[in-house]
Amino acid sequence: MSETQPQNYGRVALIGLGLIASSIFWAMKRAGMESHVTGYARSAETRETAKRLGLCHEIVDSAEEAVKDADLVILAVPVGAMGPIAEAIAPHLKPGCTVSDVGSVKQEVIDAVRPHLPEGVNFVPTHPMAGTEHSGPDAGFASLYDNRWCLIVPDGAPEEATAKLEAFWQALGARTEQMEVEHHDLVCAVVSHVPHLIAYTMVGVADDLRRVSDQEVIKFSAAGFRDFTRIAASDPTMWRDVFMNNKQATLEILGRFTEELFALQRAIRTGDGQLLFDYFTRTREIRRGILQAGQDTDAPDFGRVKVEK
Amino acid sequence: MSETQPQNYGRVALIGLGLIASSIFWAMKRAGMESHVTGYARSAETRETAKRLGLCHEIVDSAEEAVKDADLVILAVPVGAMGPIAEAIAPHLKPGCTVSDVGSVKQEVIDAVRPHLPEGVNFVPTHPMAGTEHSGPDAGFASLYDNRWCLIVPDGAPEEATAKLEAFWQALGARTEQMEVEHHDLVCAVVSHVPHLIAYTMVGVADDLRRVSDQEVIKFSAAGFRDFTRIAASDPTMWRDVFMNNKQATLEILGRFTEELFALQRAIRTGDGQLLFDYFTRTREIRRGILQAGQDTDAPDFGRVKVEK
Repeated sequence: MSETQPQNYGRVALIGLGLIASSIFWAMKRAGMESHVTGYARSAETRETAKRLGLCHEIVDSAEEAVKDADLVILAVPVGAMGPIAEAIAPHLKPGCTVSDVGSVKQEVIDAVRPHLPEGVNFVPTHPMAGTEHSGPDAGFASLYDNRWCLIVPDGAPEEATAKLEAFWQALGARTEQMEVEHHDLVCAVVSHVPHLIAYTMVGVADDLRRVSDQEVIKFSAAGFRDFTRIAASDPTMWRDVFMNNKQATLEILGRFTEELFALQRAIRTGDGQLLFDYFTRTREIRRGILQAGQDTDAPDFGRVKVEK
Repeated sequence: MSETQPQNYGRVALIGLGLIASSIFWAMKRAGMESHVTGYARSAETRETAKRLGLCHEIVDSAEEAVKDADLVILAVPVGAMGPIAEAIAPHLKPGCTVSDVGSVKQEVIDAVRPHLPEGVNFVPTHPMAGTEHSGPDAGFASLYDNRWCLIVPDGAPEEATAKLEAFWQALGARTEQMEVEHHDLVCAVVSHVPHLIAYTMVGVADDLRRVSDQEVIKFSAAGFRDFTRIAASDPTMWRDVFMNNKQATLEILGRFTEELFALQRAIRTGDGQLLFDYFTRTREIRRGILQAGQDTDAPDFGRVKVEK
């Protein structure tokens, strides 16, 4: 991977040791990076688990200690915790180092983090679009980022620092693309945040519907609903923070969603089959586009085995 | 499969030759059934394709001809077409034969079909809960029903005829369970119909959102949304009919859904993170139940490879 030669950071600090950070470490190992990785997590239990798993070369008891001499500091904590952490580590950052975050929301994170960072420190926000419904230090795996997108939101960061971090993520297996802050938050509301909220809602409805026993909902969970339950098992803290911090875009897309849903609901009530048929026909197109883009497989076993191209 | 010995019908007629019927034929072949299968589809093009594929032992040009001397007649047409077809074939049905349908909705189908059927013909409605986003005679495959549920809604049909059809479906690889009509329609609205409508809606929103180019929605389609697009590529005619014919249950569940969604939307607007956290934590439980029921896998690669247990 010649384009990833500039990837190497001498010392890397991972702040937060959940699914994302632990996967970063395992992917760095797989890529043969020689960086020395120091890790910190707020909870002593998480730090103990990390030590037991051999996660990072060194686990320390404070964020301040973790970032000491680090050339790259990655904030991998829930979006709501980014600001306080940035404030705590700021005085201990090495001049010229790069600070990055992996939050699913960018504007709020930038607003919360940048004011604390001293002159001469490069802040390069990122958003690796990868995850599972599992969380914690033992949930990570080296291939999590393979062929997934890692969006880079430089927002004015120096080109050299940005290019180096981009190469770092490519070395972890990810595809990278730069994006404007506001646009990032809107795109993610559409392709990720609102779909997650909807899935959470549908599972919640099924869960407390008394005339359909949970047992039946589970037993007969068909494709569609079963996928929803998978999405709705994602980390509650992370997602609470996503919605708290991407409020504007989320509410805007939710508004559009309910507007559309009511139109379809009305068509069902009034028996307007043509409207439904036309709508369902139109949505087939975007699916075809995704298949052509190689973002998913066309295997004829919807809701069962799904294999990445 | 000793429990499936009573499965054998001498002559079987498949009315409609789409994904469901063609998969029934291939599964019958795989099971080594010796029934003679006659097929009919309204469209001449579909009949030609069926002949080319070797689908059924005989393809005929009318439903009346197809059901002649048949011991089992399976109506595999969109829900809205069940009544007219039943009316057309009724005078040609063999006394004592079993008529069944594979509609995703049961009350409306029963109301549309039963009045046409003569005395002495057994009507045993079923609902195989399996499918893909593909449709047509060439979309079928022998393993579609393996380990999937086929709900049997006898609604007063003779026990012997019901047991025989149940054995038939088990021989095709399906698990079977008997259910009351109204309860079936409600359960399916929850685990299948409304989730599909929601997915169609979300994809529709993304599709006509101008500031997010389709290209980006496709390129960055993350887990969650990508699953939605898969669901939203299902057969428009079939789904139009499902919603037209399961109106009551669909609207009831949709009402509950929007009620819940608005509660979460309000929490986002007002910044009530605790409500969101508690809600998201609760939905994790139902997911655990599905895993315990072996209805899905716990593979740590959400949105990517999904393997059936």
